[in-house]
Amino acid sequence: MNKDSVKTSKSMEALKINDRRLWNRLMEMAAIGATPKGGVCRVALTDEDKQGRELFIKWAKDAGCEIDVDKIGNIYARRKGKNNDLPAVMIGSHLDSQPTGGKFDGVMGVLAGLEVIETLNDLNLETDVPIEVVSWTNEEGARFSPAMIASGVFSGAFSLEYAYSRMDAQGRTLGEELQRIGFLGDAHVGNRPYKATFELHIEQGPILESNETSIGVVTGVQGIRWYDLSIKGKETHAGPFPLSHRKDTVKKVSALLPEIYKLAEAYSPDSRVTIGYLNTSPGVRNTVPGSLEMSIDLRHPDNNMLMEMDEGLKSIVKEAMKDGFDLELNEVWYSPPVKFDENCVAAVRKASEKLHIEYQEMVSGAGHDSVYISQVAPTSMIFIPCKDGLSHNELESAKKQDVTKGCNVLLNAVLQMANNK
Amino acid sequence: MNKDSVKTSKSMEALKINDRRLWNRLMEMAAIGATPKGGVCRVALTDEDKQGRELFIKWAKDAGCEIDVDKIGNIYARRKGKNNDLPAVMIGSHLDSQPTGGKFDGVMGVLAGLEVIETLNDLNLETDVPIEVVSWTNEEGARFSPAMIASGVFSGAFSLEYAYSRMDAQGRTLGEELQRIGFLGDAHVGNRPYKATFELHIEQGPILESNETSIGVVTGVQGIRWYDLSIKGKETHAGPFPLSHRKDTVKKVSALLPEIYKLAEAYSPDSRVTIGYLNTSPGVRNTVPGSLEMSIDLRHPDNNMLMEMDEGLKSIVKEAMKDGFDLELNEVWYSPPVKFDENCVAAVRKASEKLHIEYQEMVSGAGHDSVYISQVAPTSMIFIPCKDGLSHNELESAKKQDVTKGCNVLLNAVLQMANNK
Repeated sequence: MNKDSVKTSKSMEALKINDRRLWNRLMEMAAIGATPKGGVCRVALTDEDKQGRELFIKWAKDAGCEIDVDKIGNIYARRKGKNNDLPAVMIGSHLDSQPTGGKFDGVMGVLAGLEVIETLNDLNLETDVPIEVVSWTNEEGARFSPAMIASGVFSGAFSLEYAYSRMDAQGRTLGEELQRIGFLGDAHVGNRPYKATFELHIEQGPILESNETSIGVVTGVQGIRWYDLSIKGKETHAGPFPLSHRKDTVKKVSALLPEIYKLAEAYSPDSRVTIGYLNTSPGVRNTVPGSLEMSIDLRHPDNNMLMEMDEGLKSIVKEAMKDGFDLELNEVWYSPPVKFDENCVAAVRKASEKLHIEYQEMVSGAGHDSVYISQVAPTSMIFIPCKDGLSHNELESAKKQDVTKGCNVLLNAVLQMANNK
Repeated sequence: MNKDSVKTSKSMEALKINDRRLWNRLMEMAAIGATPKGGVCRVALTDEDKQGRELFIKWAKDAGCEIDVDKIGNIYARRKGKNNDLPAVMIGSHLDSQPTGGKFDGVMGVLAGLEVIETLNDLNLETDVPIEVVSWTNEEGARFSPAMIASGVFSGAFSLEYAYSRMDAQGRTLGEELQRIGFLGDAHVGNRPYKATFELHIEQGPILESNETSIGVVTGVQGIRWYDLSIKGKETHAGPFPLSHRKDTVKKVSALLPEIYKLAEAYSPDSRVTIGYLNTSPGVRNTVPGSLEMSIDLRHPDNNMLMEMDEGLKSIVKEAMKDGFDLELNEVWYSPPVKFDENCVAAVRKASEKLHIEYQEMVSGAGHDSVYISQVAPTSMIFIPCKDGLSHNELESAKKQDVTKGCNVLLNAVLQMANNK
């Protein structure tokens, strides 16, 4: 193998993966923790997760990779390049699933990374810099909160001790479970420089499918603001109290809700507003609810817009306090918008063009390991459609041809960054 | 004692009760099950309820009454009249309380009845027909559902077997507990004809207090319709799904709620609408809630108005189904409006006038034993104000002078019916 031939091949025509191998491996991995409804339950640091990790390591070793496991259980499968002192190009995602998860969320990104390496092996192509495929521990956060904890430790957002101390519903810590399944490794978490990183993922939304587009070139991730809103009125009897004498928190929120939705819609189409939790107290049929608790989730990819939405929400709440109700709005989390690296985004765009695959640029609405990784390395993501936009669901589904297209785009984007001096 | 002297006294001046005795007995009874916050916990068929019943019976016996206990534990304290074959005039309410109840709800009606008898004894007045004071079992329904079960059995709304089988949260039946506290009596439940019945009660609402009026002449009870409304949309991720692609049940309900409140307000001031229970599912901050459940409680004293409100609600829900949401409205209970007996209402009005006490006619928004009793006997109620309209609350409070006024009205209304041939 020599570099010139690679270069020629690259410029002449786009390379293609072995679509059957990738698909078969996805299905073989999906058998670990398979659920009766066709989904997957491979929750972080369970026996099923261990089995999935071991299968991935076996495949990676068979493909000639060197394996590292770090102190938070992240697995690094490395294919050497021409110059192994240079930062690698990394392809990462996660093998863990939601308790009633699907066959593609996370695992596709890891196995597509492996397929990139297998294809390079098949074609006997050497890259200038090494290529690493990474599986990040506990991305879903379904068992140990918060989500994306291990890529968070990698990027410096969380300490290792904090991560170890996270506890599941049965009182077992992440650290204990990591040790139990044999994945408490030796490698340091972090300080692993990358030239570029990519993550292939299902969209988890309906945009690509409804536009009949196979590739989403992901330019960044929405900013997110989470709030708790509590409204205190007066708990009174549903019968004797005239409407004019009540301090009914549901009546109050019935005036607020349309304003909150209107606020968010003013920043559409990129804005999001979700009131996922809303509950009355005491929650009794014949008592006017004296208090009400709700969550508000605001998102926008543009931080200025998100700040305006934040101000708008605060003034809606302030205005609502006028007639004697007590409202309390608390921001509980803020994740600023992420802008992915221009070169990485351009590489994905170029790869799509080379492959003559229609694409659209888009912003991720969900969090991914790439959000943390983008803080320490140039990063982008590639989305493919999933059926009805469903994920975190046993019915999650992606078409084989879209998986193939996504992995072909990944292969060509990776190659471009791995050989571009 | 002779009848003519009574008649003369009645037409000359209004009789008055011994206000100190009544108040002291209310406070003595409130010591049974007293709570640290100044309330009362004397829940049906507990040891405290037993103690309260025994104290009432002791006082009634001391006042010369004959005591009957029926098969559902209702206690009848009877003061003979001139003609004991004629139907009695009855004064009834309940001794049981909510778990965090107050000193007046129910118990005031029973002890005021006893005070009427004591006053007649003090004045050595004989009535034409007997007078009975009744304490109805388990009015609150806090331990054994449904509420007002024993007056319900009395009126024929429930069978005795059904009542016995009702179970508390610990799995003990009403029948077992009745036996345990020694109040499973011999007397038949029902078939006890009454010429007239009265119930003195706190308003449990703010109207009298805000109008600075001491007496509510209760002309009837609101009709009540209870519904469950469920809304099914689509559970999706809070990030990736654009607002335009969502089937967000909270957004949906935010359009419905203002319409429901508007509907009820169109029938004000007598209408009531309460959405006591509203809950989203799955109730997770970052998931668009795919379903939502809520209760709706509609009330109006006029059955035609209540029927129009029912139709209005159904058409709001029907209209809301248009854009692909699935809504299901189920009526779970209907209690038609009650119109109290004109003669009994007139007796209360006349007694107030005779005593020169300001009164206003009003409709009860809450259920009372009198709702069931009115199905088998001429009935009315007398309301007095309570602080801030609060009841079912340890802070429930009534002024001594209002209790006195209420009982004086009761005494004179009872006398009028007990002597009016």
